Amino acid sequence: MAVTYKQAGVDIDSADAFIRSIRPLLGKTHRAEVLGQVGGFSGLFRPNLGRMREPVLVASADGVGTKLLVAEKLGRFDTVGVDLVAMCVNDVVVTGAEPLFFLDYIACGRLDVDKMHAVMKGITRGCRQARCALLGGETAELPGMYPGSKFDLAGFCVGVADRVRLIDGSRCRPGDVLVGLSSSGVHSNGFSLIRKVLSDREIRTPLGRTLLTPTRIYVRTILSLLGNTRIKSMAHITGGGFYDNIPRVLPQGLGAVIRKDTWTPPRIFRQIQERGGIEEKEMFRTFNMGVGMVLVAAKRSASRVVDRLLALKQKAWIIGELVSGESGVRIV
Amino acid sequence: MAVTYKQAGVDIDSADAFIRSIRPLLGKTHRAEVLGQVGGFSGLFRPNLGRMREPVLVASADGVGTKLLVAEKLGRFDTVGVDLVAMCVNDVVVTGAEPLFFLDYIACGRLDVDKMHAVMKGITRGCRQARCALLGGETAELPGMYPGSKFDLAGFCVGVADRVRLIDGSRCRPGDVLVGLSSSGVHSNGFSLIRKVLSDREIRTPLGRTLLTPTRIYVRTILSLLGNTRIKSMAHITGGGFYDNIPRVLPQGLGAVIRKDTWTPPRIFRQIQERGGIEEKEMFRTFNMGVGMVLVAAKRSASRVVDRLLALKQKAWIIGELVSGESGVRIV
Repeated sequence: MAVTYKQAGVDIDSADAFIRSIRPLLGKTHRAEVLGQVGGFSGLFRPNLGRMREPVLVASADGVGTKLLVAEKLGRFDTVGVDLVAMCVNDVVVTGAEPLFFLDYIACGRLDVDKMHAVMKGITRGCRQARCALLGGETAELPGMYPGSKFDLAGFCVGVADRVRLIDGSRCRPGDVLVGLSSSGVHSNGFSLIRKVLSDREIRTPLGRTLLTPTRIYVRTILSLLGNTRIKSMAHITGGGFYDNIPRVLPQGLGAVIRKDTWTPPRIFRQIQERGGIEEKEMFRTFNMGVGMVLVAAKRSASRVVDRLLALKQKAWIIGELVSGESGVRIV
Repeated sequence: MAVTYKQAGVDIDSADAFIRSIRPLLGKTHRAEVLGQVGGFSGLFRPNLGRMREPVLVASADGVGTKLLVAEKLGRFDTVGVDLVAMCVNDVVVTGAEPLFFLDYIACGRLDVDKMHAVMKGITRGCRQARCALLGGETAELPGMYPGSKFDLAGFCVGVADRVRLIDGSRCRPGDVLVGLSSSGVHSNGFSLIRKVLSDREIRTPLGRTLLTPTRIYVRTILSLLGNTRIKSMAHITGGGFYDNIPRVLPQGLGAVIRKDTWTPPRIFRQIQERGGIEEKEMFRTFNMGVGMVLVAAKRSASRVVDRLLALKQKAWIIGELVSGESGVRIV
């Protein structure tokens, strides 16, 4: 028996062809700071540290989760790449850092070049929306690990901020106001629950397409906002919903009260809730409920923050406030 | 029907317990430059840029591939984390950069806390070997995407180098010498072929344990070597073996001649080759054949490089030289 690597299920030549096909996509994301080219062992990025006194690197890793299975069911692969970038860059920008570059990891059982090209198109679109360079990545063909057409995505983002400008929640005070920024839909969390509640048939309807709406990338909006308003803390509402994510960025001894009548969640959340008979609290623990990002600002500047966001075409509402003597999140 | 997220297959509480259990492991990898703590949305790292005039960030993403399936078969999970770190940090150090921090992505169908704790132990051991901080990561429980006990790992490393000290192969000349550094075994490539050639029964023998030997991490050795010798180029021998990896770091118009009688590959490679009836060229296209890293040095400094490596307890051999008028790799 003579075996070559190709027969063992790893086609290095088709992987090379794939890499060549995505090179133009990568180029579109590049910033002046990118050095060298794809093909070396690593990506090189010379950050413009300008007048930063103490540059701090901010890094985040994330995936898209079982939203990929919904993409599979609908046979639509050009949006999940945006989700992947969004999950990472939104986690970076909440520190006040500017995302610089992104790397992806794609793993599949067999390299379906068309499908993976669509995924890469989404990733590069996301990178352009976040103005971050796609600096490299790994596409792994792993026969025996991913059955059939299954694949997984992971992403990594690095940003930079001057240390004095990092936003860490330490200046939060009782009475500060919570500003909620509208999400584009369910974003990339809660899909295991969604898939439990909705049948495959239901997912293969316009509802399914609504579920696939890419996660909003808040990078440009937030960086623009930080240019002329003071934000004390920011939370990206992901897995764990309001209850898990907001306390992460509040100092000890401060809790958040959120008034759920201050905005109207998109219809998709009501549909999921009714279909599954899910308790309201569980909804807020699992989903963003229409609020993908929560900012904390001093009461006196809150309306200015909202106005500025509206001017940036980002819907936003004052959704609650910080209170002392409590911890965690109370939704009323 | 009332559904909670836990019932849908995602157990946020056990994920929280897992995160708490690994926190002490993370701490062991931390360097003074790490700011803040786990639990925020991102990891923060204040690099000590010292007297660098033009700091360049060097980033790499990689996975372990189907070596994970061999770990599954042997029920041994504390080594693949080292492989994951090795694949990334070795790709970074070949540019001459010092790895600073690492992030991981772990995805599984169901969070087996013991198994994933073993994986994290390997990752933190690898980070300590590479002296890089484990700055963050994502552990995703993805029911329906990974069947049974299957899981996947992706890693991401960022390093830094002063631009003038980057090693890019541009100074390579005909007559320069190739120095091979011993590998610890098959490292993390070629496992799809290995699994085609060896039966499950064969993998469940001491041979299998040999296959699982963690990938050597060359970071400390290389950084120490760069302190007092001049290296012109470095290639990490991974997927694609000698033929794909060495040309990546050579300037156009230069080829590499490698004399395979200058070192003796560990027995494991002969075993795989004989068992599968694999052609010699295919072996060198798939495996590292006992040479995990190849350096290029001027002829007059080559023996000094080898001596220095031996003093650092790294076996090394002069395995060939660069020639003009050819491209690619010729193994004689």
